[in-house]
Amino acid sequence: MDTVKVEIITIGDEILIGQIVDTNSAWMAVELNKQGFELAQITSVHDNAAHITEALDNALARAQVVLFTGGLGPTKDDITKQTLCKYFHTELVYNHEVYENIERLFVTRPNVMNKLTAAQAMVPANCTVIQNKVGTAPIMWFEKDGKVIVSMPGVPYEMKTAMADEVIPRLQQHFKTPGILHKTTIVYGIPESQVAIRLTDWENSLPANIHLAYLPNNGIVKLRLSGTGDDKELLEHDMDERLQGLLPLLGDGIVAHEDLPLEQIAGRHLTANRQTVATAESCTGGMAAKLLTSFSGSSAFFKGGVVAYSNEVKMQLLGVQENDLEAFGAVSQQVVEQMANGVRRLLHTDYAIATSGIAGPTGGTPDKPVGTVWIAACSAEKTISQRFQFGSLREQNVQRAAQAAMVMLLRIFKP
Amino acid sequence: MDTVKVEIITIGDEILIGQIVDTNSAWMAVELNKQGFELAQITSVHDNAAHITEALDNALARAQVVLFTGGLGPTKDDITKQTLCKYFHTELVYNHEVYENIERLFVTRPNVMNKLTAAQAMVPANCTVIQNKVGTAPIMWFEKDGKVIVSMPGVPYEMKTAMADEVIPRLQQHFKTPGILHKTTIVYGIPESQVAIRLTDWENSLPANIHLAYLPNNGIVKLRLSGTGDDKELLEHDMDERLQGLLPLLGDGIVAHEDLPLEQIAGRHLTANRQTVATAESCTGGMAAKLLTSFSGSSAFFKGGVVAYSNEVKMQLLGVQENDLEAFGAVSQQVVEQMANGVRRLLHTDYAIATSGIAGPTGGTPDKPVGTVWIAACSAEKTISQRFQFGSLREQNVQRAAQAAMVMLLRIFKP
Repeated sequence: MDTVKVEIITIGDEILIGQIVDTNSAWMAVELNKQGFELAQITSVHDNAAHITEALDNALARAQVVLFTGGLGPTKDDITKQTLCKYFHTELVYNHEVYENIERLFVTRPNVMNKLTAAQAMVPANCTVIQNKVGTAPIMWFEKDGKVIVSMPGVPYEMKTAMADEVIPRLQQHFKTPGILHKTTIVYGIPESQVAIRLTDWENSLPANIHLAYLPNNGIVKLRLSGTGDDKELLEHDMDERLQGLLPLLGDGIVAHEDLPLEQIAGRHLTANRQTVATAESCTGGMAAKLLTSFSGSSAFFKGGVVAYSNEVKMQLLGVQENDLEAFGAVSQQVVEQMANGVRRLLHTDYAIATSGIAGPTGGTPDKPVGTVWIAACSAEKTISQRFQFGSLREQNVQRAAQAAMVMLLRIFKP
Repeated sequence: MDTVKVEIITIGDEILIGQIVDTNSAWMAVELNKQGFELAQITSVHDNAAHITEALDNALARAQVVLFTGGLGPTKDDITKQTLCKYFHTELVYNHEVYENIERLFVTRPNVMNKLTAAQAMVPANCTVIQNKVGTAPIMWFEKDGKVIVSMPGVPYEMKTAMADEVIPRLQQHFKTPGILHKTTIVYGIPESQVAIRLTDWENSLPANIHLAYLPNNGIVKLRLSGTGDDKELLEHDMDERLQGLLPLLGDGIVAHEDLPLEQIAGRHLTANRQTVATAESCTGGMAAKLLTSFSGSSAFFKGGVVAYSNEVKMQLLGVQENDLEAFGAVSQQVVEQMANGVRRLLHTDYAIATSGIAGPTGGTPDKPVGTVWIAACSAEKTISQRFQFGSLREQNVQRAAQAAMVMLLRIFKP
């Protein structure tokens, strides 16, 4: 069967004046893609009835599904609901379940339920209402000539909850999409083009129901294997077997076998083993610590870290030797290994990671140009370190160095 | 005169499969908005000639300017140039300046100039070529019936350089847009709706050529005054005078009078006064340090910081008293003030900031629900601290707490 085409229309001024970045659409794109839907276009328009209608007409001419986000607030700017009513030749009617949902939410909120919010209980007569479990604006599902139009709030948490729990499962059911299974392998340190060359034969031997996608990001290449089939167990077994074939082709380049941020994979490993980690950061300036604390449960394995931006702090807190700083410079194997071991001893942890580099845009030398970063990881038994050469942009260098520190942490776990 | 309407069309699969978030459009939206252009729609499409052509037709029916980003790489996927050639009934011709530009760039690159890259020197015959100073893909400027179509690379750094240095100035000239001047005041701690109430009379008294915009983000409200006029000096004087009128209305809520991230305002103040700062972070997990090191020159004022996630680290490194931790808990005024003073003494800095809170989603209590954060700032002479109540989302709480820490740092500077 053909792929079901989906389009997203975001409504509201915030994106068009640059007040917010449209992260919603990227998240939706990933989730739709994973379930085998094809996202054909994203359109961002103002709260303007004529413009919304035109965008919807154009989208329906191309796609089977149109997903609206935004424009459902209680203020008079927000006209999505009225516009959809007009489009579907219907009128707003009172929906008691929506009203009860709003009442339920307001019990835990310090605001007073007011007239405007109660007006959210008015919904177009001919839509299927999907309750919004985490917000006041209901989700509205319309059908027209076999096509589906869904209107959701633009608040990311509300949109994500609605998409994951209701909209995607209902779309799968509506379009009878085949069962789909994904397996992800994360590769680091081999450029995408090199990975592709090494996997040519392996990829060519995949059966028609299993497809490989390359998802490169910040130095990482995610290999996502997607398979379709009615017998899920058989499919899973087949995919696992094929993934085994990657090991001899990519070797140490394989960092993990699941689709999670590296810091979460590291965190889970540490938690399971009741072990701890500390960070010593120079050029990443706190970013590695931030990654390790970016999810719930991080206090179980992360005790803390030192951002040692000045050499004084490197020496005083981390015990880096002054003569090594002088002889080799702060961006060196000697210093970064001392930083890692220093913070591990200081904070009494099982592991530690350290970064020292030249984030840029200034500070580069012919020997150590901007983007040069030394990263170390250590345990009580051993220390590993590596020199990385990233690019010329400061923010990107910090992101990539913090990412590489997570790779080094996963590597030090290995016996 | 009427506002000139602009639309953006992004080309390429990366956004539509969610591999990258479209930060380009948000940046362009801000810059266009500042210069008085109205962004009417953003459209993201695949590398598909028919779809690109349809999007361009639709955009030209609504707007005077269409800005393309992406789809200009040297690989066969990228078909923007061919598609525009066909659209404008022209053909690709060799452009020697573009070739020389590519040669110039390759001198500093470790790659070899290959056939594909040389093909980038082929451009549509009827466009005005704008040299790309920082990349190989040329920028192409087309005109049709008084309307302007520009095609730019999607690489953020290349797009930003082209927009700021060439495209926006040329659009201003082409459409003879009036001179525009902006003044920004940053307000913190007063909700947007409250600010609006307090400013009602002030705003109503603004002359027709001066306009106020509210730009709320992460607890901060930016007030942007935009004025148009031929006499720039007179306009600036008039706007400055009006801004003086905000002081009695907003008082301590005013944090800064310029449109820069708070960490950069703080950094500049410290650098100018040859002073230093350190950070002690619990719930923000390194985010405050990351903000202070996110721009060039930060080593002049930022010596380092401690991420004190566990109580053990708070006591051992920062000198937090065990009995205070027991009596008041880690999320308390006593502890956060001791953290700030502790790190200031430890790293010998003039100032320090500290954060301790419950980022969530777990760990809340009735007294201190998720989102409760204590923040302190100190110098040798004084310590200030405040309890903040943010929301229920972990990442947002960390961002808002780090932001609030910057506000506290700016406050401790004041005599």
